[in-house]
Amino acid sequence: MNTFGRLFRVHIFGESHGESVGVVIDGCPAGLSVDETLLLPDLERRKGGIQKGTTPRKEEDVPLFKSGIFNGKTTGAPIALFFENKNTRSEDYTTQRNIPRPGHADFVANKKFGGYEDYRGGGHFSARLTTGLVAAGSIAKKIINHCSIEAHVIEIAGESDPDKGLQKAIDAKDSVGGIIECLVNNLPIGLGEPFFDSVESLLAHALFSIPAVKGVEFGSGFSAARMFGSEHNDAIVDANGTTKSNHAGGINGGITNGNELVFRIAIKPASSTPKQQESLNWETNTVETFSIKGRHDLCVALRAPVIVEALTAIVLADLFLLEQQTQHRYTD
Amino acid sequence: MNTFGRLFRVHIFGESHGESVGVVIDGCPAGLSVDETLLLPDLERRKGGIQKGTTPRKEEDVPLFKSGIFNGKTTGAPIALFFENKNTRSEDYTTQRNIPRPGHADFVANKKFGGYEDYRGGGHFSARLTTGLVAAGSIAKKIINHCSIEAHVIEIAGESDPDKGLQKAIDAKDSVGGIIECLVNNLPIGLGEPFFDSVESLLAHALFSIPAVKGVEFGSGFSAARMFGSEHNDAIVDANGTTKSNHAGGINGGITNGNELVFRIAIKPASSTPKQQESLNWETNTVETFSIKGRHDLCVALRAPVIVEALTAIVLADLFLLEQQTQHRYTD
Amino acid sequence: MNTFGRLFRVHIFGESHGESVGVVIDGCPAGLSVDETLLLPDLERRKGGIQKGTTPRKEEDVPLFKSGIFNGKTTGAPIALFFENKNTRSEDYTTQRNIPRPGHADFVANKKFGGYEDYRGGGHFSARLTTGLVAAGSIAKKIINHCSIEAHVIEIAGESDPDKGLQKAIDAKDSVGGIIECLVNNLPIGLGEPFFDSVESLLAHALFSIPAVKGVEFGSGFSAARMFGSEHNDAIVDANGTTKSNHAGGINGGITNGNELVFRIAIKPASSTPKQQESLNWETNTVETFSIKGRHDLCVALRAPVIVEALTAIVLADLFLLEQQTQHRYTD
Amino acid sequence: MNTFGRLFRVHIFGESHGESVGVVIDGCPAGLSVDETLLLPDLERRKGGIQKGTTPRKEEDVPLFKSGIFNGKTTGAPIALFFENKNTRSEDYTTQRNIPRPGHADFVANKKFGGYEDYRGGGHFSARLTTGLVAAGSIAKKIINHCSIEAHVIEIAGESDPDKGLQKAIDAKDSVGGIIECLVNNLPIGLGEPFFDSVESLLAHALFSIPAVKGVEFGSGFSAARMFGSEHNDAIVDANGTTKSNHAGGINGGITNGNELVFRIAIKPASSTPKQQESLNWETNTVETFSIKGRHDLCVALRAPVIVEALTAIVLADLFLLEQQTQHRYTD
Repeated sequence: MNTFGRLFRVHIFGESHGESVGVVIDGCPAGLSVDETLLLPDLERRKGGIQKGTTPRKEEDVPLFKSGIFNGKTTGAPIALFFENKNTRSEDYTTQRNIPRPGHADFVANKKFGGYEDYRGGGHFSARLTTGLVAAGSIAKKIINHCSIEAHVIEIAGESDPDKGLQKAIDAKDSVGGIIECLVNNLPIGLGEPFFDSVESLLAHALFSIPAVKGVEFGSGFSAARMFGSEHNDAIVDANGTTKSNHAGGINGGITNGNELVFRIAIKPASSTPKQQESLNWETNTVETFSIKGRHDLCVALRAPVIVEALTAIVLADLFLLEQQTQHRYTD
Repeated sequence: MNTFGRLFRVHIFGESHGESVGVVIDGCPAGLSVDETLLLPDLERRKGGIQKGTTPRKEEDVPLFKSGIFNGKTTGAPIALFFENKNTRSEDYTTQRNIPRPGHADFVANKKFGGYEDYRGGGHFSARLTTGLVAAGSIAKKIINHCSIEAHVIEIAGESDPDKGLQKAIDAKDSVGGIIECLVNNLPIGLGEPFFDSVESLLAHALFSIPAVKGVEFGSGFSAARMFGSEHNDAIVDANGTTKSNHAGGINGGITNGNELVFRIAIKPASSTPKQQESLNWETNTVETFSIKGRHDLCVALRAPVIVEALTAIVLADLFLLEQQTQHRYTD
Repeated sequence: MNTFGRLFRVHIFGESHGESVGVVIDGCPAGLSVDETLLLPDLERRKGGIQKGTTPRKEEDVPLFKSGIFNGKTTGAPIALFFENKNTRSEDYTTQRNIPRPGHADFVANKKFGGYEDYRGGGHFSARLTTGLVAAGSIAKKIINHCSIEAHVIEIAGESDPDKGLQKAIDAKDSVGGIIECLVNNLPIGLGEPFFDSVESLLAHALFSIPAVKGVEFGSGFSAARMFGSEHNDAIVDANGTTKSNHAGGINGGITNGNELVFRIAIKPASSTPKQQESLNWETNTVETFSIKGRHDLCVALRAPVIVEALTAIVLADLFLLEQQTQHRYTD
Repeated sequence: MNTFGRLFRVHIFGESHGESVGVVIDGCPAGLSVDETLLLPDLERRKGGIQKGTTPRKEEDVPLFKSGIFNGKTTGAPIALFFENKNTRSEDYTTQRNIPRPGHADFVANKKFGGYEDYRGGGHFSARLTTGLVAAGSIAKKIINHCSIEAHVIEIAGESDPDKGLQKAIDAKDSVGGIIECLVNNLPIGLGEPFFDSVESLLAHALFSIPAVKGVEFGSGFSAARMFGSEHNDAIVDANGTTKSNHAGGINGGITNGNELVFRIAIKPASSTPKQQESLNWETNTVETFSIKGRHDLCVALRAPVIVEALTAIVLADLFLLEQQTQHRYTD
């Protein structure tokens, strides 16, 4: 359940206020240079406490390598990485235990795990788990280092200028959402499969595992629903498959077509808004007004691009490794 | 690659103009009444040639049961089903072989499979493969027969009245896209997992395997990106987890919360438009003007709701079976 | 549950006395020549009614190709194959329904599937299901056609001369068991993984899925338990990894070492012996003496070598495809 | 590749002389009491340095819980466990780097991983990795705590008295092999599936992942090959499926039949014998006489029973969780 990938496989674990979060990466080819300096730049982008509008909780996020690296290179064995949780304030959550926070997983976790869930700061449901994913993404990027993967915020609170959107949040003392766009270039033709292993299926699977994602669209996306076919179709203009337009977003029939891969992700406003809210107190069985304690992001979308890139890299690295086998042409 | 599901598993096969399409369904519990009459109503909804705006190719789509049913009941063994292709006109495709159709998989299939692909009518990439999925969906619906699953067209060519939207296509002699909404009621609380096996991840994975889907959004979807947190959060109002609003679309932390499951899918206009188009002739290496032969839908979205329901049922039946194990509570 | 393989995947279905048995093969590379003439020689070896001591039930076993082949070549899409059951006599089994046959799955199938199982001739548990495996094996052999795979009977009823062993069965009017040995040559170094994907793990997994297999051993096998380390170790004598002896059976640390792969399989005597037996009549709840009706093998081991070869080829073809990805060396 | 299980899933990682070994256990139900005291008894049984004939390398093997436990109970989230490697002497291995040790994975690992493998003490191939498996096994045993699982040595160096067998090793100054038998009682009827998910397939898969295992047999095993059918068949004598004899070893058609589960495993003599051996020096390309440095077991079979129990528990716990779903009976 906490595993993704067929050949390049990531297993995540950990809790927001437990001892650590981490990841085991299996199926990584041998011989890649992997150390702390490879991982830190992406980890830094994910961190709170740096950008305006992100949580003041600031973790060091130093990756502790536990296996799979020898003399600075991957060995082909699983790479176990963990990150200690140091800057935790669990008491914030214990006092609020009786009121499941709206928008969060508190209520469903309690029902599903029979009250045994670690409820502190969302426990295993926390976006802090994405730390391991970002680290895995940095390693995955090495496998497909001939490609560029770039995700960026294209809208915050309805504003194309992120600063303006964030200012709305600050003014309203409320959390806001946003939209991320991701572009991948230099992909080979032929990654993915028709139907269940389509590039869209695999990417959407991975992207919807990011907390707060509410929508995913490829190429022209939802606006395609309002176009004519003659308008939407991308004319192929050369033997490399270059197309005149790119409404397809770089994918046909589930398979990369060599053009730029384009997709967008909708991120809802953080559930932990500073505003007063209502929810059920399940001890007293009454609806109460309360406000959320703890340190939180006004806009989680600001920290999301590097997570989007990481999951994209994980999916594409896996497809890239899978594709090696079909490169072997059979003649008989 | 042509397999989906963990416990309730579907394996699809076939080609548009080959001998047949079909599905093997593994992991279906024993004792369900399954026969032709169970499957025909959904198969009928998927068919072309009935609704205005759909392809004149009309297949009988009689399910041929090859295994897994005994005395009218499922046995617990795999159910093999196939559907003969009778109404094929392969010659339409052979003549067009040199020009990969824009929006279709012709170009990428040729590159990926080295020219060995069955190119007739899209071959294995054809939406005709969804026949098996619809049949599997009808069986999956039996497993979760306490739930209602209803998908319907909410927009065609930008019009909320599907007839008006289709008229646009007829007037323009061009294909058009649309938006499907799916609602599921009476789901138990607790299906799905945080992260990779979130309900959103699994549904999006399945839904993006439907040809022509360009976007998937849950609950408030892309519009969530423009809301404040205090506005988006759904206040819990009773011990069953009922929420005042349903921006979450029935899912928190990847897990069903007992409220209505809501999602929408964007369908692009059919790539096979009657309009003249340009594409590369890879024999002559020149860009040519051509128009697509064959019998096609003006709006594939019209036939999509039953396919959306089928994949939804397949995902939810699987999650439902998976959840049985966690119902066993441990005390020690 | 009826699926095996990671990249080269086989899905089996069918029942002994239902309409058909078959297999869907997914992940087969495009461009292989596959037709009836490829499959018939191995299917012929599996058949009853030809060799002395095998069942008089004689099926034609003509493979019906339903998908995945175009112009005589694999397309990269799933290959669906069916075999019709023609020569069935279900009435033999209905009369015996109340007495679960010792050694067979009748009792457990009834408990597990709540009475819904197809009980005729063992239903889905029948060795007739291996028809699809043998067909898949013939295709798998094409992927690794640089290797030779040869399984043969090395012992029947304790006799190294199979004829002498079979004569024992005929004389005793009782079924007998046997031992099969399989040798694979020209394997590359490096297939398999340490631990769970060791060549031994994967082969044993596949081989124990053959009905009647009671033991699997590699290289020196059980006799290794009585050897000294200095005696058992295989000295490496050249840079290709050639070893002086081959007690390891061609595998070290779960990985092929380039020497001959050697393993043996113990096959129990057919449960359907002509002798009178005792078992419970679950209608009357009394232990009864009865004898088994139907047409059966005196020694199933005689038909097993081609099945052993098929599963071996399926495992090795999958590992061979998997290994292509690690052949890509990374330098950075 | 380093993952086993469908619902109860274990992911192992680590190296013999790296920083640590460990395991992530996913899919463990919430609410089980799990702490150090649960794990230590089995870990103690696996340790070297205690029993005569086992390696003098003595690790503390204290499990470090990193996630998945809260207030002493499992939470339903992945359980990450680490064991530090403290008592390492890597220099023993560096000096011997040029001579791949016979019987070990040195040669194949070097070929497969292109020289990037951690070669110290077998690296990732080391039996030290079974520490994590033993810990996972102790947790798995809790899930099936109504069953008893007992593995014991039944033969060392051909002697049924283990002390006598070990004395042979001491006298010969050579390593020796042995046979382990495992018995499981109180299993429910109905675990496992026909064919690929047979109990034999899954157990053999798991058991052959233990380093040094050369053979696995169930019930009468290899001796079944020399029996008549009338002799081998186990007559069912009551409605619970109790059989008069148990040649089947508790499994019919791949499914547990409610009788005692019985199987045996052949363990080869440790490859690291104190005796002088020959192997290729791949630097000089000459065959050299050498003896193995480092601290080693004279008989690894002595430490194997608890590992066999652990893998058995892991397989059975997974099957037990899977079976919960089929317990749900459908009537329509």
